[in-house]
Order: sequence, then C-alpha cells, then structure tokens
Amino acid sequence: MRTVRVVGFGSGPDQLTAEAVAALRASAYVVAADKGGDKGGDAGGGDPLLAVRRAVCEAVGLPLVAVPDPARDRRPADTTAYGDAVAAWHEARVAAYEQVLRERPGDPAFLVWGDPSLYDSTLRVVDRLRDRLALAVEVVPGIAAPQLLAARHRIVLHEVGRPVLVTTGRRLAEAVAAGHDNVVVMLDGHLTCAGLGLEEWSLWWGANLGTPSEEIVAGRLGEVLDDVRTARRRAVEGAGWVMDTYLLRGPG
Amino acid sequence: MRTVRVVGFGSGPDQLTAEAVAALRASAYVVAADKGGDKGGDAGGGDPLLAVRRAVCEAVGLPLVAVPDPARDRRPADTTAYGDAVAAWHEARVAAYEQVLRERPGDPAFLVWGDPSLYDSTLRVVDRLRDRLALAVEVVPGIAAPQLLAARHRIVLHEVGRPVLVTTGRRLAEAVAAGHDNVVVMLDGHLTCAGLGLEEWSLWWGANLGTPSEEIVAGRLGEVLDDVRTARRRAVEGAGWVMDTYLLRGPG
Repeated sequence: MRTVRVVGFGSGPDQLTAEAVAALRASAYVVAADKGGDKGGDAGGGDPLLAVRRAVCEAVGLPLVAVPDPARDRRPADTTAYGDAVAAWHEARVAAYEQVLRERPGDPAFLVWGDPSLYDSTLRVVDRLRDRLALAVEVVPGIAAPQLLAARHRIVLHEVGRPVLVTTGRRLAEAVAAGHDNVVVMLDGHLTCAGLGLEEWSLWWGANLGTPSEEIVAGRLGEVLDDVRTARRRAVEGAGWVMDTYLLRGPG
Repeated sequence: MRTVRVVGFGSGPDQLTAEAVAALRASAYVVAADKGGDKGGDAGGGDPLLAVRRAVCEAVGLPLVAVPDPARDRRPADTTAYGDAVAAWHEARVAAYEQVLRERPGDPAFLVWGDPSLYDSTLRVVDRLRDRLALAVEVVPGIAAPQLLAARHRIVLHEVGRPVLVTTGRRLAEAVAAGHDNVVVMLDGHLTCAGLGLEEWSLWWGANLGTPSEEIVAGRLGEVLDDVRTARRRAVEGAGWVMDTYLLRGPG
C-alpha cells in the first residue's frame, strides 16, 4: 500500500524537525498547489509560498510536483453560496491531486505551512484521496505560527494555569463577546482586533514569522496599532505576501 | 552579553528542528533540573524525563549540567498556601540555576519538553535569571503535545473555521460549563473528563506521545474510557511516567 505523508514544515527548512526530514526522505515526491494563499495570505505575483516549499524540497533532495490550483470564487453571495464555493474548490483540488498520484508512482508527500492541526485543509483533501486511492496516511507535526509568535516575544500564550482560545479573525468578535480575554487569532487578513474597542488590551503581533520578512510588534493595542499597520505593509513589500497572527490579552 | 537559549525539543531528538539544533550548538551547555515531572507527569524512580534531555544533549554534542530540583510542597492547605508554595519552589529553582550560571562560563541553554509557550514555567524562571545576571534571552519553539496528538490521530484540532480552547484538567469543568465543546486538555493526571457526564462526546487521547511508550485511543468517551485507563497504565509500566493530553468534542 502506498503511504501519503502530510508534513508540517513550520515556515521553512530551519523549522523542519528530524522526524519531518525522515518522512520526506521516505517519500518519492512532494505535491504542492501552485498558487498558495491557502491560509489567508495576501499572495502577490509568482507564488512566493510555493517558493518556500521548493526550498524545503531542495533541503531534503526531493522533487516537487506543482499542481495548478483551481480557481476559487472568493466573493459568494451568502453563507450557503460560500459553503458551495468552498466545496467545489476542494473537490477540484482533490481531482487535480488524484490525477497526479495516479500518473506518478511512489509515495507522495504534502507540505503544510505551520502545522497540519491548525486551520489547514490538507488533511481533508488527503482523506478524500485516501478513500479513492487506498492510501495509508502519516502525519508529521510542524511548528505553528502561534508558537513562533510566542518564541519571538519570549512569552507563554496564557497566564499561569489559565486557558488560551485559538480562533480566527472572523470569529474574534464573538469570542470577545463571550468573555474571552486571552485569545490567539489566526487567518485574520484585516486586523479585526482594531475595530472591537480593545484599546486597553495587550497585543503581541507577528507577521511572516520565521521568514526573512518577519515583523513583530507588542504593546497596548491602542498605542501600537499604527506600528502594526506599518510593519504589516513592510512585510508585504519585503515578501510579496503577508500572514499575521496575534495574541490578545484583556487588561484586568 | 551572555545569551540564554530556551529551546523546545518536542518529545526527544526526533522532534528537534534545525533551528533548535543550531541554537543548542551555539550554546556552551544545557542546564536541567534533576527530577522532572514539571508538566504534571507521574515520574517514577530515577529521572526518566532527565534521561530524554540527556539524549537530546548527546544528539547535538552538548554537556548537560543537572541541577537537583528543590523539593516542592504539593499538598498546601488552601489557595493562598498553594500560591506561596509554588512561589517558594520557583525561587529555590532560580537560586539553584543562578549559582550554576555564575560558576560556569559560556552561554547556557534550557531544554523545554514540548514547546515553551504552553504550560511551562521555564520562561518565568529565565526572566528572573535575566534580571539578576544581565542575560539576553532567545526562545526556540518545539513541537507541543497537542500537535503530536493531532498528528497521531490524523485530525485537525478544531472543526472547519471554528475555535479550539486549550486548557488544563483543573479548569476543564468550568470550560464545559461555559459551553465550550471543542477543548484540548493538558496537565491532567486524573482523566478529569471521566467525571463530567460527557459520555456522548468524542475523545482523542494520547500519552507519552513521540516516545517509545506512546499510547493513543479514540472514540465515544463513554465507550473508550476503559481502554484509555488500560493504555495509561501500560504507558506508566513502559516508561516509569505518563503525561497525557486529549481533545474533547461535543456531540452536535
């Protein structure tokens, strides 16, 4: 039976674990979508996110098979249409990968930015491929953006013995309304925290963490938002894309 | 200025990232408490958690300086006494490390099981050392137990686009009472989920993840608790210690 390996690579070759390197070396090739932005990044021309995957493949000596990513309708009319558009896009991706895997022998691997366990659709795609092609599935964890965020700011993601909620920009307002005061936000291309009246909260923010265009800012939200916006623009200018993550903590 | 490096190592040498290896090789030695159990593990004789740190040091060719861990009063009378006991224990640890760092030249490193950003006191200890010894601090993330849990079960830690709460066994009941239905639990030596009427919830459980005594169990909580208890005993028998982590998801 062929094995498909889903390997988290953090933000590049420096974040590969020994286990990830071994899993990739046990594979025949890496399959990757050509046109990243999967995690909400504002991708510019070329495909800079694919370029990072190429760097990972070069680091372990593995060929990369780039698969043109199907177009995705990002402006659906309502929630139902949104769900339909996402479902159609997922099916088109699965079909494209299925074709590659049928044509190309050996064990394929998928490289996941960050960690496959947080806000990533690769495992859903691979589950469908497994059903159609009778594959075994192995998953190798990678360093996720919130961990890099914490490391760069030299902080723990929660107060002593207390919880941390990890959520998306889209759901931040409801988390705050529900009383959460220690929240890690991912997939937020719009700096949602700026519009929620949280000026007194503490913010630890980072963009393009672990890459040459990395930016970090920390402070009282109301005081540092301009710095964040400036740093965010600098990240876009430096890399052609930006993905940001932040920790919010209430005053009290 | 000397630099102290706080390096997450996941669960052993296989989970070291390239960045972690480089940070350790840039250091002169590793300081480690002799008598682990810091993360709520039921440590047995010897110090099996220290043995894993030794294996990491051997993998990167670094000497390990073991520092006898001060005794901790784990049965304080009330909440205030509990806080006092923890504070006294932290201060004793800091003093012991401070002495080693003063006596021994070169850059020290601390190895953190899992990731320094989740339920770990190393950064608090290092912050105090920094203040006393004028050190620079660098933090390198490592693979955390919830990520290994997700990888082994080949799952994402949340439902599509929804949040995940990460909390402790001690605070699980209040999280459930507050309506959370997708919760990662750490630091739970007592399988707290068994006593909360969550028989219909889904459970993905793991112990000693990433080590030779790893165990995983998944299923409807009411149906798999006996399997979990059996697997947990097996982990203790195999390793002399057990640290478990799990994801709970409500039915619905």
